[in-house]
Amino acid sequence: MKSKLLLALLAVSLTGTAAAQGKPEDAIKWRQSAYTTMGWSMARIKMNVEGTYNKDDVIKAANVIQAIANSGMGALYPAGTDKGTGWEDTRVKPEFFTNKEGVGKVAMAFNKEANEMAKVAATGDAAAVKEQFGKLGGTCKGCHDDFKAKK
Amino acid sequence: MKSKLLLALLAVSLTGTAAAQGKPEDAIKWRQSAYTTMGWSMARIKMNVEGTYNKDDVIKAANVIQAIANSGMGALYPAGTDKGTGWEDTRVKPEFFTNKEGVGKVAMAFNKEANEMAKVAATGDAAAVKEQFGKLGGTCKGCHDDFKAKK
Repeated sequence: MKSKLLLALLAVSLTGTAAAQGKPEDAIKWRQSAYTTMGWSMARIKMNVEGTYNKDDVIKAANVIQAIANSGMGALYPAGTDKGTGWEDTRVKPEFFTNKEGVGKVAMAFNKEANEMAKVAATGDAAAVKEQFGKLGGTCKGCHDDFKAKK
Repeated sequence: MKSKLLLALLAVSLTGTAAAQGKPEDAIKWRQSAYTTMGWSMARIKMNVEGTYNKDDVIKAANVIQAIANSGMGALYPAGTDKGTGWEDTRVKPEFFTNKEGVGKVAMAFNKEANEMAKVAATGDAAAVKEQFGKLGGTCKGCHDDFKAKK
């Protein structure tokens, strides 16, 4: 997988940020993968706050979300990826590419709550994690409502 | 996506680690997503060491790899996921489920080099990052050779 992705990438360009986006279908697959990885991590946190709480498990999940939230996923939305297929057809709405202010707003809200989740997880305070999980999940939903088409 | 995954998860069980694995097809999709997210991050690092070096870009990518490497992905290989379809059919080899010692060895090697990559990335030393990229990539390949079927 890795070498195939790298080769695909090299075929496009050899410089800077543009290259790191890869082919349109790679960019779509990468962003779908990153969101799904965060989905897994959110599921882990939810199971912990609703079931038996394991501090380390929540820290690991929160760290994954934080790292991806801060990774600069905006680069995975190059022009031409408003339509296309990664793992599946992209469900990004056209508004994502035109409403820069709106996208910036939801992205900043998500980043803020993801960073806060990592801080709260480190304390091991289950009640605080539960509250922060709600805030973080709200920023996921806010973006989905505005910029992701329903299935 | 998130709420669907969470519902799928809740349908299985409500306690502890077993629940965090979700349905077999979720576990397979989640692990495929996590590896692909690391593949994106490896591609970003490679482009930086082969092209124009951007310290922040490499740090972001290395942090994603580190967080996922330390997330406890072993939980995404529950019994019954030796076959099955996530985003695509799993390519895990049967040996992954029987050779615990071998899996432990490649997993530990990967973890070590992923943590080292994050440290080296933070220094901004492009030559050292290039060297560490080779070491880290070697641990990816080592696991793929032994435990992942070729396409």
